[in-house]
Amino acid sequence: MNKIYVNELNNYIDKDIVFSGFVDTIRDKKWVMFVILRDSTGKVQMTIEKSVEENSNLLEIMSNLSKDSVIKVTGKLVSNEAVKLGGIELIPSKIEVLSNANELPFDYNNLDGVNLDTRLDYRFLDMRNEKNILVRKVESCLVEGMREYLYSKDFTEIHTPKLIGAASESGSEVFEVKYFDRNAYLAQSPQFYKQMAMAAGLSKVFEVAPAFRAENSNTNRHATEFTSFDIEFSYIDSYLDVMDLEEDLLIAGLTKVKEKYGDTIKEVFGKEVIIPKKPFPRIKLQDLYQELHNLYNYEIPKEDIGDMNAEAEKLTTRYAMEKYNSEFIFVTDYSATKRAFYHMRNEEGIPCGYDLIWRGSEITTGAQREHRYDVLVNQAKEKGLGEDVKFYLEFFKYGMPPHGGFALGVDRLTMLLLGLPSVKETQFLFRGPNRLTP
Amino acid sequence: MNKIYVNELNNYIDKDIVFSGFVDTIRDKKWVMFVILRDSTGKVQMTIEKSVEENSNLLEIMSNLSKDSVIKVTGKLVSNEAVKLGGIELIPSKIEVLSNANELPFDYNNLDGVNLDTRLDYRFLDMRNEKNILVRKVESCLVEGMREYLYSKDFTEIHTPKLIGAASESGSEVFEVKYFDRNAYLAQSPQFYKQMAMAAGLSKVFEVAPAFRAENSNTNRHATEFTSFDIEFSYIDSYLDVMDLEEDLLIAGLTKVKEKYGDTIKEVFGKEVIIPKKPFPRIKLQDLYQELHNLYNYEIPKEDIGDMNAEAEKLTTRYAMEKYNSEFIFVTDYSATKRAFYHMRNEEGIPCGYDLIWRGSEITTGAQREHRYDVLVNQAKEKGLGEDVKFYLEFFKYGMPPHGGFALGVDRLTMLLLGLPSVKETQFLFRGPNRLTP
Repeated sequence: MNKIYVNELNNYIDKDIVFSGFVDTIRDKKWVMFVILRDSTGKVQMTIEKSVEENSNLLEIMSNLSKDSVIKVTGKLVSNEAVKLGGIELIPSKIEVLSNANELPFDYNNLDGVNLDTRLDYRFLDMRNEKNILVRKVESCLVEGMREYLYSKDFTEIHTPKLIGAASESGSEVFEVKYFDRNAYLAQSPQFYKQMAMAAGLSKVFEVAPAFRAENSNTNRHATEFTSFDIEFSYIDSYLDVMDLEEDLLIAGLTKVKEKYGDTIKEVFGKEVIIPKKPFPRIKLQDLYQELHNLYNYEIPKEDIGDMNAEAEKLTTRYAMEKYNSEFIFVTDYSATKRAFYHMRNEEGIPCGYDLIWRGSEITTGAQREHRYDVLVNQAKEKGLGEDVKFYLEFFKYGMPPHGGFALGVDRLTMLLLGLPSVKETQFLFRGPNRLTP
Repeated sequence: MNKIYVNELNNYIDKDIVFSGFVDTIRDKKWVMFVILRDSTGKVQMTIEKSVEENSNLLEIMSNLSKDSVIKVTGKLVSNEAVKLGGIELIPSKIEVLSNANELPFDYNNLDGVNLDTRLDYRFLDMRNEKNILVRKVESCLVEGMREYLYSKDFTEIHTPKLIGAASESGSEVFEVKYFDRNAYLAQSPQFYKQMAMAAGLSKVFEVAPAFRAENSNTNRHATEFTSFDIEFSYIDSYLDVMDLEEDLLIAGLTKVKEKYGDTIKEVFGKEVIIPKKPFPRIKLQDLYQELHNLYNYEIPKEDIGDMNAEAEKLTTRYAMEKYNSEFIFVTDYSATKRAFYHMRNEEGIPCGYDLIWRGSEITTGAQREHRYDVLVNQAKEKGLGEDVKFYLEFFKYGMPPHGGFALGVDRLTMLLLGLPSVKETQFLFRGPNRLTP
């Protein structure tokens, strides 16, 4: 394969090359035709002088071609200080049309006036926008950075089943699948299975995989399918170890992004990638309520007492910025009634876990898990869980080390990192109650 | 967190430490009790002298404890050449029971007589077997090696939806999901979406994610859910570029595994990890039929003409070994009637693609894709595909670079690498027509 990418062209100045790419723009001047070609790494100018007789064939090809067609150009790459795009230009001797483009339904370079549903219908065109292609690269880089950190700490990546026999942890809002002559369900999270890995003695695992929620809600941060980055590990002393690892993990991911795309993100999104410092500030929920009351005159509504809500999360970030100059803040000591049955509780019955808030939004729930069979059985009963968790409780009968973990939504993280308005613009292809296509 | 792992113990000789782990075995001798402790990295001996008066409490704790309970030991780590396990032993001063184990339903160290269904029911115990824990680590390492290679080549990892609106590429054998007031389906592969990424201009993508097949078949290599490693990239000259990349990818993955686990795999599974050399041998299907006939007197059954079957795959590996001393062999020039509509065909109508055979089994189908809208529409019609692929055909209307790709089943690869009898023993949790649990 001889594809030369735009970001490699500097190695080919004064050489005869073959270059393939999308036709980005055509500027047809009196004496010359300028064609900007594009690939996933950048843009380069192709210049066709009209006074050169041999160019008539090339000019004919290009005049009949619409924007975003794909062509293969044989020609010479030369330096030209007058060219704004990197000071180089391609002088073609042969042009081959690889793919003809129809007229585009909208201008992906100017999406302001375009209906979001139209954009999602034509996501493959929407994604040609410089911002949207960068979203994909940044998300990939963030996950790469986090994975690298976990590999370096000897974590094992696992792939747990998404087709499950019982309706998962919460029992509600789960998709039903026709599975031969019975029903299956789609996993809402790999929670039970990553804990199963602890029972198996794997001790440090992670998974990056789809999770499914049959929630009929339309907020900017919910989707029926999303990518969950899940971690679980054994032999912890308390949930403080879980928070500690999450700090390192996020620092590793953000550092990787800043190194590779920090400048580009600033240029394209106007956002600074800020690497947080350890330890992130921490506050107990009751103390936080007090602070939000004192500082912002905010009262948590009755139904949310013991928990947070969207407005409280926003104010919490304001508080973390004003008091600690930190974008991140851990909130601990939630109410047991608002937390899953598998969270360990301390002697006062307070769950040994936390939420992590970043840029106005909850990004993680983490906890030490209850690993003692008898205690766990009682906590499950208390939440009214029976048959559906029976198989899970088995994991705790034959020796289970103390353990904990957390999950991060990759889409939500990327959305917050780049300041995108919703997960609809963040996911490769958004899935919501009213959207299953393309 | 202060967890010290067995493979780190050499740094703590003559030091007071805290060590947590599973109780692997207890050997109660007249004058001394030997307890072998285990974590995910190995085993260490704890020695309790019965003549020492202060040990009576420790001995009492241990006598009441069953195998596979989890304990936390405070004690001193000392050298002792007589100890087979690394020449070190732990002399405890305090033992805390973290988790009590019930009597195990079977001996996971000796699985020969144990029914496979029982093993799968108790997969979390089955996985405590040294071999089975190694399966997980090797699979993780293989995927890590392949990912590293792709990152180094500037590939972007994507996460495509598994909930889809139409019944995917083949139209058959797809799981149906109740999606609010309509039906959705589970993606059999990310094929259409990774090609959508090419239309978006991403140019090099990969995905590691679950794929779903509603096949009611019970072979050793089929599962209803499996982990698919998918690759797609643009600007190829032909499918030879795809084969070339796949060679490099597999070499990278296998090299990583050999470096990290080569010796252990040989010891535990008796299998050599062999790094293949480029280029892998290649043969056209018709020539292969001829060779199999001449050498092994094998005739492909009428219904499989233009394609392969399980027996032919086995013989093809024998042929590759005997003729080329290669475990890998590419087979090309399948019949268009046996290949998907989106494979590009050459002037003679032969698909521009291949299967890769390894150790008696097909592990990949790869191809250059048809990127020309008109040709693709005709090929879809020819296969009787209509409404279901309409959204996919849209991707080709607005400029599409030439591209190709392939997919690898992570479970199948791991199975073949370690010589496991079936994917049931390979997957973290097997999913088949009759198995949805645990």
